[in-house]
Amino acid sequence: MKKFQVVGIGNAMVDVIAHAEEEALARLGIEKGIMQLIDMPRAIELYGNIGPAEEVSGGSAANTIAGVARLGGRTAYVGKVKDDQLGAIFTHDLRAQGAVYETPFAAKTAEQETGRCIILVTPDGERSMNTYLGVTEFLAPSDIDERQMAEAEWIYLEGYRFDGPESHEAFAKAIAACKSAGGRVSLTLSDPFCVERHRDAFRRMIREDVDLLFANRAELMSMYQTDDFATAMAAASAEVDIVAATESEKGAHVLWDGQHRHVPAIPTKIVDATGAGDLFAGAFLWSLTEGHDLEACTRMGCIAASEIISHVGARPEADLRALFQAHGAL
Amino acid sequence: MKKFQVVGIGNAMVDVIAHAEEEALARLGIEKGIMQLIDMPRAIELYGNIGPAEEVSGGSAANTIAGVARLGGRTAYVGKVKDDQLGAIFTHDLRAQGAVYETPFAAKTAEQETGRCIILVTPDGERSMNTYLGVTEFLAPSDIDERQMAEAEWIYLEGYRFDGPESHEAFAKAIAACKSAGGRVSLTLSDPFCVERHRDAFRRMIREDVDLLFANRAELMSMYQTDDFATAMAAASAEVDIVAATESEKGAHVLWDGQHRHVPAIPTKIVDATGAGDLFAGAFLWSLTEGHDLEACTRMGCIAASEIISHVGARPEADLRALFQAHGAL
Repeated sequence: MKKFQVVGIGNAMVDVIAHAEEEALARLGIEKGIMQLIDMPRAIELYGNIGPAEEVSGGSAANTIAGVARLGGRTAYVGKVKDDQLGAIFTHDLRAQGAVYETPFAAKTAEQETGRCIILVTPDGERSMNTYLGVTEFLAPSDIDERQMAEAEWIYLEGYRFDGPESHEAFAKAIAACKSAGGRVSLTLSDPFCVERHRDAFRRMIREDVDLLFANRAELMSMYQTDDFATAMAAASAEVDIVAATESEKGAHVLWDGQHRHVPAIPTKIVDATGAGDLFAGAFLWSLTEGHDLEACTRMGCIAASEIISHVGARPEADLRALFQAHGAL
Repeated sequence: MKKFQVVGIGNAMVDVIAHAEEEALARLGIEKGIMQLIDMPRAIELYGNIGPAEEVSGGSAANTIAGVARLGGRTAYVGKVKDDQLGAIFTHDLRAQGAVYETPFAAKTAEQETGRCIILVTPDGERSMNTYLGVTEFLAPSDIDERQMAEAEWIYLEGYRFDGPESHEAFAKAIAACKSAGGRVSLTLSDPFCVERHRDAFRRMIREDVDLLFANRAELMSMYQTDDFATAMAAASAEVDIVAATESEKGAHVLWDGQHRHVPAIPTKIVDATGAGDLFAGAFLWSLTEGHDLEACTRMGCIAASEIISHVGARPEADLRALFQAHGAL
């Protein structure tokens, strides 16, 4: 048995969550529903123009790993924070959830700070994310512990983490160490605009290294440059062993080996959609490494996603195992 | 018309809120339901032993002032944070709510950090608070702007702020500046153990300077060293123009001029009791300065308290005016 069921690599972020009306987004020049990268001056400008906020640890892959840990899975995370107060918060929350997290801090003297994501939640529950990457952009190959990667049944790579000077090299090192020890590689495309920025690199990695691809409808259609979701799913399925494709309130699809199953979403009042895809992936990977079949993995992914969108914040508050049991999925 | 309806002075804190089971409190040596002062090493020890948390701006009087601001009141706050990330969060949230907040930061080089309160919320909604005061303990007379105090219809003094080397002098300066310009003084006793620590100083201030006293049942009985709430209320009423005494699920009492009215609480499912008394005071002071009678002020206080305890966090999430209207109080 390997030490870790899942090891995630991604952008280590603290979420700054505030409620905002639609017109505030327009006034602040924020495009609704997507993730935009911002620099520190813009982060300061935005923060000065939003209402009272709450701070909770976030980061897409970190949310996924928090979900795996919450489920009792053996899991670790790699991502860079600074030795500052937000870095301490991020570190605490991930470890307190039960995940191993040992990436070296950026020094107190680093010019940038711990990354943060200013998330504006509109009354419809949609979130518009404004990400100041800070030190997390500088994750380097030296931050990748090859022994840890070799101890992973699966590694989980966050597409967002492709933005950064040494990210591709860091991912390549992680993939090589994992695969040479018999581990497998999963990737999330993260965001349609992230796909735009990195389509060729993603495509190469998908063809050569990825065993399991997570993507939502928009990301997958962007990846394969088509307006038809079914076409995009088929194209992905031709390149990857397993494709898990989410479709918001329409649920999720899983494709493998010529098979295709659809699992409906759990009807839920949407309070804050932040983290739905992250927790879908966390529950999917956990149940996969627990030996469940792919349709069951997809079902647990949908249940976990429904828990996340029912409250503000991207990490689970309920007992996910109990929820799976209540829905007859476990 | 004075520039400010209410100016509050208190401990500027960021709340670190985590859920905990009863047995965790015992294991960590935390006495349930009260506020304990802790030092930095104990704060680090506790933080290392609690689950994932969320960070929201807090501080008792700051919550009160946030409530006044949320109601559209003209209001300002005085309390000390450091020029660090938690200080920036505190400052943002208070200003974003519409309050004036101009207390000079403690320098980046200060030995202590911005104060924080580690709040453990048990399944019954009770909160056990562990307060690292940090730089807020060092609020000094030089931080009190006499012009601002003279511009206040009411100042609101937080009992907790009595812990600290120069606090009494700071309060004395604020009271003198406020009173000499025709303003009035309110005080909250904050906590029964705070009353134990400062009974004589509180008593002197109540007799000489306080026009409106906020206290809950336990605080008032501690103040007047009696086991009987009615006796304590009568004793306070003999010394202060207005006494507003809260009694948790039994509602609140207001006493003035030989009169005594009781207002029942709004039945609410308690999620997190943090901030109930703070928002009672905020709503009471706002309605008082809007010209409502004392029974109406008490009613609005109870409605505001019921909003706060229905969610995690000590600052209002709902539109309080709309709530007052829905309950026929406005």
